[in-house]
Parts: sequence; C-alpha cells; structure tokens
Amino acid sequence: MLFTKTFIPTLREVPADALIVSHRLMFRAGMLRKLANGLFAYLPLGLRSFRKVEAIVREEMDATGALEIKPTVVVPGELWKESGRWETMGDAMLRVKNRLGGEFVLSPTAEEAVTSLVRDALASYRQLPLTLYQINTKYRDEIRPRYGVMRGREFVMKDAYSYHTDEASLDNTYQAMGAAYRRIFKRCGLSVIPVRADSGAMGGSDSEEFMVESVIGDNTLILCRNCAYAANVEKASCKPELVSGGTAAVPALEPIATPAVKTIEQLCGFFKTDARRFIKTLIYRARNVALDLAQVPGGAGFVKRKSSPEAPEVYPEAFFAVAIRGDLEVNEVKLAAALKASEVSLAEDTEVVRLTGAPVGFAGPVGLKNLPLVADLTVPAIQDGISGALAADTHYVHVVYGRDFVPWLNVDLRTVVSGDRCGLCGGELYEKKGNELGHIFKLGHKYTRSMQVNYLDENGQTHIPLMGTYGIGIDRTLASVIEEHHDDEGIIWPMTVAPYQVIIIPITYAGEVKALADSLAANLEQSRIDVLLDDRHERPGVKFKDADLMGIPYRVVVGEKNLARDTPVVEVKRRGEASVRLLEVSKAEAELIRLVYRELG
Amino acid sequence: MLFTKTFIPTLREVPADALIVSHRLMFRAGMLRKLANGLFAYLPLGLRSFRKVEAIVREEMDATGALEIKPTVVVPGELWKESGRWETMGDAMLRVKNRLGGEFVLSPTAEEAVTSLVRDALASYRQLPLTLYQINTKYRDEIRPRYGVMRGREFVMKDAYSYHTDEASLDNTYQAMGAAYRRIFKRCGLSVIPVRADSGAMGGSDSEEFMVESVIGDNTLILCRNCAYAANVEKASCKPELVSGGTAAVPALEPIATPAVKTIEQLCGFFKTDARRFIKTLIYRARNVALDLAQVPGGAGFVKRKSSPEAPEVYPEAFFAVAIRGDLEVNEVKLAAALKASEVSLAEDTEVVRLTGAPVGFAGPVGLKNLPLVADLTVPAIQDGISGALAADTHYVHVVYGRDFVPWLNVDLRTVVSGDRCGLCGGELYEKKGNELGHIFKLGHKYTRSMQVNYLDENGQTHIPLMGTYGIGIDRTLASVIEEHHDDEGIIWPMTVAPYQVIIIPITYAGEVKALADSLAANLEQSRIDVLLDDRHERPGVKFKDADLMGIPYRVVVGEKNLARDTPVVEVKRRGEASVRLLEVSKAEAELIRLVYRELG
Repeated sequence: MLFTKTFIPTLREVPADALIVSHRLMFRAGMLRKLANGLFAYLPLGLRSFRKVEAIVREEMDATGALEIKPTVVVPGELWKESGRWETMGDAMLRVKNRLGGEFVLSPTAEEAVTSLVRDALASYRQLPLTLYQINTKYRDEIRPRYGVMRGREFVMKDAYSYHTDEASLDNTYQAMGAAYRRIFKRCGLSVIPVRADSGAMGGSDSEEFMVESVIGDNTLILCRNCAYAANVEKASCKPELVSGGTAAVPALEPIATPAVKTIEQLCGFFKTDARRFIKTLIYRARNVALDLAQVPGGAGFVKRKSSPEAPEVYPEAFFAVAIRGDLEVNEVKLAAALKASEVSLAEDTEVVRLTGAPVGFAGPVGLKNLPLVADLTVPAIQDGISGALAADTHYVHVVYGRDFVPWLNVDLRTVVSGDRCGLCGGELYEKKGNELGHIFKLGHKYTRSMQVNYLDENGQTHIPLMGTYGIGIDRTLASVIEEHHDDEGIIWPMTVAPYQVIIIPITYAGEVKALADSLAANLEQSRIDVLLDDRHERPGVKFKDADLMGIPYRVVVGEKNLARDTPVVEVKRRGEASVRLLEVSKAEAELIRLVYRELG
Repeated sequence: MLFTKTFIPTLREVPADALIVSHRLMFRAGMLRKLANGLFAYLPLGLRSFRKVEAIVREEMDATGALEIKPTVVVPGELWKESGRWETMGDAMLRVKNRLGGEFVLSPTAEEAVTSLVRDALASYRQLPLTLYQINTKYRDEIRPRYGVMRGREFVMKDAYSYHTDEASLDNTYQAMGAAYRRIFKRCGLSVIPVRADSGAMGGSDSEEFMVESVIGDNTLILCRNCAYAANVEKASCKPELVSGGTAAVPALEPIATPAVKTIEQLCGFFKTDARRFIKTLIYRARNVALDLAQVPGGAGFVKRKSSPEAPEVYPEAFFAVAIRGDLEVNEVKLAAALKASEVSLAEDTEVVRLTGAPVGFAGPVGLKNLPLVADLTVPAIQDGISGALAADTHYVHVVYGRDFVPWLNVDLRTVVSGDRCGLCGGELYEKKGNELGHIFKLGHKYTRSMQVNYLDENGQTHIPLMGTYGIGIDRTLASVIEEHHDDEGIIWPMTVAPYQVIIIPITYAGEVKALADSLAANLEQSRIDVLLDDRHERPGVKFKDADLMGIPYRVVVGEKNLARDTPVVEVKRRGEASVRLLEVSKAEAELIRLVYRELG
C-alpha cells in the first residue's frame, strides 16, 4: 500500500482529552478519531489492527468448536423482561422506543438474545453441547466515557454462550474457553493476569477474569507475593482468622454508657482498645433478593413479589444487619452474592432507626428483631467483643459469638487489602489496578430456567440445559496492546496485530530507489506480508518520525548512497530496537520474510 | 465441518409470516431466525453466505482504492442537525436519548458521520480524491417490516463516501463504483438492472440504482422493449409530445358554466372530448423549499427561515399550482426535485379554496395570483385547452399556453406508464417491479457545504470538496440471490456465495464409508473448499432433502455398494441439475476441486 493512497492523518499534537497512552497514540498515529464523547471511528490504519485482533479471536473461537452467529444489535426489550434483567440492568443499558412504541435495547451483552434463539431451535440432547458466539457491536451508556476505546460507549465484543446437559460438559467448554483466552492474549502480545473468583484451592472455578495491569484500571486486583493467587478485590478472600479457645472465661454481657461515642475511632479512644475487638454492625438494604426469608429470624416481615408473570418471586426490598470486625470493610459484591440480591447499599438513617430502634451508630448483633443478621467470618473469632447495644449512647462489652448472638448466615464478607495473608499459601497479599479484557463465567440455570429452555434426554425426559458465558472486548484488547507496547516515540506493535508489518521508506521516491522500493513492496506483499511504502514527498526525518509513531515492526530504508555501493544494501531496523542492520539487496526480501514470519510464530 | 458439530436447525414447515421465497428458504434451511418483527439473527449456515457476500463487496471496494473505516452505529444527533437532515429524515430514522439527555441516531446511513471525520482530517488537495467505506450495521424504523431480511429493521450496508477536487475526479470514482457494483452482483450470480436517473442520452449520470426484478419490489421500473433504457418510475422520462403549429387559429378564452362538473371524467362527458385536451391543475404543498421565490410570480407571500443557525435558509412551507395534461399523473418525486423541496403533497381543500379563490375542482392556470405556476412539458403541446376558471362551476375553453398564461417553470413532471414511448429510441416502454440492492449517487456540495468541509488547493486557496455516496445492502443482496436461484426443493447456491461448496453424504457413517468420507472432506478442505460432511444417523432420504434445501452446489454420496465395485466410485450431483455422475474414488478429489474452482471463476 502506498502511503499517499491511504488515509493516515497523523498528528503532532496530543488531543487534550487523551489521558492515557493508548488514547494519545491511537489519535496521533491516525488510527482513530472522535465522533462524540465515547464514540470513536477507526480510520484505515486503526481498523487494520482491529481486524487482526478480531481475526485472532475468531480463529481461537472456531478452534474450540464454537459457532459464529449474528444476532441483531437492537434486541426486543421483551427478552430482557423474560430474564428479569429489564429491571436489574440499571441505566447503563440504553433502552429505545421505536415509533410504534415497542421497547428495545441496544445490546450491552446477549445472554437473552442467544438463549431465545437456542430455545426456539433446541429439541434434543443430541444438539448439545452447543457454543454460539458473535463478534458484534455493543453499547453501554457510560456516564463518563474516558480513556478512548478503553472505555467507550459503543464497542465491539466477542461474546459466546454455551449450553450443556451436565456440569462436566459445561466445565469442559469453560476450560477450553479459558485456554483459548490465554492463547488469544498471548498471540496479541499481552501479559494478562487470569483472576479467578474462588480461591483456586478447590479446583474448578465458576468465573475467571482476564486482567491487564493499568494505572487507570476499573478493578483492584489482590495478588500474592508468594504464589500465583490473583483475585478481583470484589471476590478476593484471604486466610481466615483462627478461632482459638472457648468462651468460658469471658464475663457476662454488660451495657456501658457511651454518650456521643459512635465511630470506631471514638470507640477505640473511649475503650482504650484496638478496632479489632469491635463487632461493627451495618444495616444494608438489598434489592431483588432471591432467597426465602420466611423462616429466617427477623426475615418474616419482608414481602415476596413477581415483577412480571414470568419472573421468579423475589423480595424487591429487604434489610439485613451485617456484622464484621471493626477494622474491616464490608465487600458489597460479596454481600450481594451471599444474599442473591441484584444490589445492596447502606440503609438510610431513618430506616436504621426504624429497624434497630436506636440512633445510627448503636447497632449491634445482640437482640435484633426486625431483620436477619449476617456475620463475616471474622466475627466468630472475636473472643470478647464490643458492639452497639441497640440503644442510644449505649454499647455492650463482653459480647461473645454463639453465647450472646447467633447470626443467620456466616459468610466471607471482608474486603481484602494489602497486607492480608494469602488463603492458599499464607504469603503477603498486595494490590494492583487492572482492566478487564475478558471474562468467562458459568451461569448454571440462571437464564435457561427463567427463559424456559428445554431439551429432551435419551429417555424423552425434559431438562433445562446449563449455560456458560464468555466475553472479550476487542477495542479494549487492542488499546491494551498499545499500553503494553510503546515508547516515547510511539507504538511498538507485536507482529501479530501490526497494521502493517514492514514500512519501506525510500529517501527520495524516484529512479533506482523507487524501482527497488516498488519491487520489494510487491514481492513482500506476494508473500502475504502487509507493507506500507512511504511514497510521500517529505523529508526522511518526517517519515522516520511517522514510522516510529505508527509502530510498524520493520522499517526498511532505501537510499541512493546505499544502492551505489559495490554490494548494494538497504537499512533494516526493528521498531523498539536501537540497532540498524544493513541487508544486501539481493537477500533483503528473503531475510525480511524470515524475520516477519518468525515473529508471527 | 461435521453436520453434528454445527447448528443447522432445518424446518419442514414454512413460517406463517414468510411471504417470499428467500424468507421461507432461509428459515427452512436453518440460516436465519427471528428475534422480533424485522429483527433477524443469522445462524451459522446463514452467516457463512452472508460473510461471502460481504467479502466480495470488500474485495471489489478495496480494488477501487476505497479505504475501509469503522465509525460507530450510534452517532450524535448534532451531526444530523448540521447537515439539516435531523428535520428532513422523517420517522424512519430512529432517534435515541441517552441518560444524560444527549440526542443520538441509530445510523440509517452515514454521510454526516464520515463527512465529519473527513472535515477533521482534510487539509490539502493532496489528500484527494479520497473514498472511505464501511460495512456496518444500519437501522431503519420500518412501520411494517416484511419479507425477512429483504426489508428488515436492522441490516448491514456497505456505504462508501468519496471526496474530490473537481467533477472529473468525482466522475472517475463514480464510474469506478458503477463498474465495481456490476462486478459484485455478477460475482454473486445476480441479474441486476442498472437504472439511471437521467435519460442516459447526455452521457454521464448523477445517480444509478441497481435493481433486481421482484414481484414484491418497492420500486416500479420503466424499461424499453427496444433499447437498454431503464429507469425508476420516480425519475423515468419519456419521449416529449411535439408542439406543432401556432396558436393563431384558436378563438379567444371563453368561460363556460359547468355546474357540478369536476372530475376529468365528468368533464370529458360534458365537453364530449378526450382527457388529453384538459389542463389539469393541482395545488401542492411543498416543505423546505430551497429556491428563492421572492421574484417568482405568486411567490412573494411565502417566508424563508433557518431551522438552526447553521442550516441554510429555506421555505418551511410553500404552495404551487401544478399543471399537467388531463390524462397524466404528476410524479411527486420529480416535482420535489424541481422545487428543491424535501417533500411535496396535495394541499388540503381549505388551502385550495384560500389560494385559488374557488372550490376544489375549478383550479386552472389562467389568472393565478397567490402561488407560482409550474407546468409539465405536456402543457405547451395542448393547442386549444380546457381548464378550471378559478370560479365555482366554471371552466375555460380555448385556453392557449403562452397567450393566456405563462408558467414560472416548465419541467418534466409526468409519471411515465406502460405504453409511453422511449425518450431514446421511441420504443414502447413497459413496467416491472424491482428491489433496489445498490445505489450510487453524485452529491455535489450538498453535505460538504452545509457541514463546512474545506481544503486548500496548490495556491493556498480554500475550496469545498465535491462528494459522492455509494451503498449496497448486504442482507438484501443475499436474499436476492436466493430469490433468483432456487427450485421447489430449496436453494441452488451460486458457488461464490454458497455456505458450503460440497456436501458429502455417507449412506452409513461407519467403516470404509466413514474412512473415505473423512479423508475426502479433509483433502478438499486442504484445498480451501468448504465441505459439510453429513455424519448424522439419519436415513439417506432425510439427508438428501436437507442437502437440496440448503442448496449446497455439489453433493457427493459415499455408499458401501459403490465402494465394493471393482473400480470403487462415488456419486456426484450438481444441485439444480438432474444428472448424477459416478466418479472413480481415486479421481474424485481432483475432479471436485476442478468443478468447484471452475465455478468460482
């Protein structure tokens, strides 16, 4: 391709709103332009790399036996009502009314659409397992889209959905997807951190996120300095505290007047002790709770409802008291998962007063009546605790788990932080910021049950298939490649996703130099190498700067002086390396083919 | 690919809402499923053919030097306001508000988006000509989507936009696109009728539509039995009527009382003459008229306005009297074009009374005061006419063009019908229904001026580039292939867009039969032939029926008996042909490769 025949409007200046390297470089290299906040157009150079990432993803998906389909981007709201997500998806899902009043969704993901297709066509166990995927436009109505295509409103996602007769089959596909994802990111030259939902100790995992380290990452990762443990802070767990000894020696529960002493800090001062002795008790409001609370102590007062005739019965609203050691924070993602709730948030002060009978700051686990008590695993380990006494200006001392209170649910709720100990090896945990590029997830019956998908087994019995979901953000993956591979001058593409693999720069595009540049380009293209020939009438310095900015792996400079030598040569340089090699003209073509294909693997 | 490893849910029954062959066959062959009215999902088999059409389009676009880009599907409404189309696009353009209240459009086309990208990046004449294209999702909020993907709400379009310094350069690209479109449709096996906007007599053309004949076509085509003339009825013209002789012999204008005689039929009876003598005069309302009417007789009463600060001044509403020979119909597309209006429609009765001073049915060209008179080219040829007299129950006889009235504008406005004479050769014209698959169009400065696109010429002078636009509907093209290539049993794919090129049917997938079927499939796939191996445990009849339904070009049947012969053979049959050939096993592979590649051309 001749530079003058393409459209690569490189920029010297950096766009003011480009806060991260990939955003800056994609604009400066002429890969991308903005149509509006969070809406970007790929120009020819950017699209070439985009398509290469897409092709790698498609190849690896096909290799797993997944089958590509193409649902629409606009999907009927009806399907989202069937699954129950019409209510729970929140405002980031863009809803549209058409001119006849029909409700539609601009797909943020496609569990519903694909499951509805499978529902229509699935009859027999013989059709399973089945994995369908698409590589298609998605939309998320971000309030503050930032960081270029790393977090745009419109983006392209590869999303796959698998259907199975049993857990073993689901696990097979899940593992195959995990392996495919590792290959995809490796082929793109990316160092990803696979992050599992559980501790990894039990073998098997229900969810794995593929993260890249990034200072602007949305996610906090918890990593072990000692072993391979890696988890999203939303789900990270750590070594539990030991519960040693009995409760025999602790005196009886005793109320203490604590006027105007409310915060953990004030309590530490008042009781002259450390925060780890306090049983912090928080009141949470949970939405769409899919548990049965009828028999749960304190749970009888909440009312179950269906949001639509097809939807399962849930508690649209319920409240819980959540106890945790005083120095720790409650992880709301863990709490929502434990309560099977779509969302949890701290209750309003008026609700706290109504439910605990005491002002805010004096909640405690002893004597709760109107709401169920959930305790973090650190709570049983507090041997002689202090807590609010459900009365104004009063705390209890000598609070003992099991003696003075028994929670309905004991579950890991703490937010793991740097310095906590690894649950696998005891090593020290630390934090990193990361961006999620991919996610694989076992869904079980979540969608297939609510959307009533069935198949017949070999005996003619009806069953609901199990399901898994597997996503990769294409734009984000591309931007992450640039985040990982660049220097001050520009991008340094891995060969696999480089928009062009070789750039030929004739010092002056005329005469013998032109002839050689043209024939070298034509011959390399014959060998399926992507070549850009910079035929512009620009100074060599300008061409070199643009070549570095665009990050094309091999730069070949053809100059008159080098061609006039006894043994004519061209200059070859690998982007990112300092050294320049001289290749004999007669051998340049073969050597470049070798170099490029070596890196393609 | 093994049949049991893919997902081809063929149907025996026909979906009730499938009114045309392509819709029925795409569903029955398991290519397509419905998500909602007008929203279809391609299943793996359908997507394979879809991608082949897409690849042909991409190859031919790239061959013209057009550069692929990827703007977003959701684009800011702001751009449509700049071009003025926010107001004029009508309700088929789906508008969306995001959660921050920003207005967006689900792209029905992308003149605005691409022009905004070019505006940002265009500096110099050296960057021109430039043609950018995308193959991307489009949306049109059809009220009654019908005929499957032939007229869906969401669809994929290849849309290209070119920018030029001068007419010659625009015409070059326009001609290259026309040639590329012909190649694309030919490669897809489609017989298209290229339909030009003008008569074709003047050389050069501003617009060309690529139609396929279809009983459910949206378009009426006017074709000549004698020459190659083909035009959309919206723009078709015919041989003009001759104006012979002078006006000397016609008596003076004379009013005649015609109580309750209003329609052309009633008038013919009353005056005992034929409709060709009447000057039918209709009152039209036009919207967004981009002409200057200040100096036009009857035009001074209308008011020009800007719909936004950037938009050009237009008449949001103006009225016109339109005269045409009594037996003809006014073509509203021609009228709107002549008036540079976004839309024209017959005025309401109250407006007619207000503007003509007479009841409906008595309008005429003589004595009009409040609105400009536009006449079809047939009007001057009426030597001694009859018309309404702008008074109740009164008509004029002896109306003479030029003597009794002079229209402001004389222009071709008639709707051409079967039996009219060809403007090129005088041959008889006839009508066909057609569907538009593609459209190429010279836009001139329409978007580049309103959106303020500039470049500098070699002397540093600022200019506005000329623009062209070129679209092809991918889904529609695919459906049209099926419309043209099928029989009662199913689809008969042209090799170029067949989802699979060879289907291998083992009579029983076991033993020697399985071994041969497997090795034949593997070897053909090595030669880049797309093979489906029907490994299902089904009766041969079922497999044959599905193969015919799916329309795979070559069917290879491998059976035990044929393998047990002295010279083992397989059966080969071309879909759509009756004869079955026996190929020696040792030669089958080479022969199939030859047959497939011969048809790929």
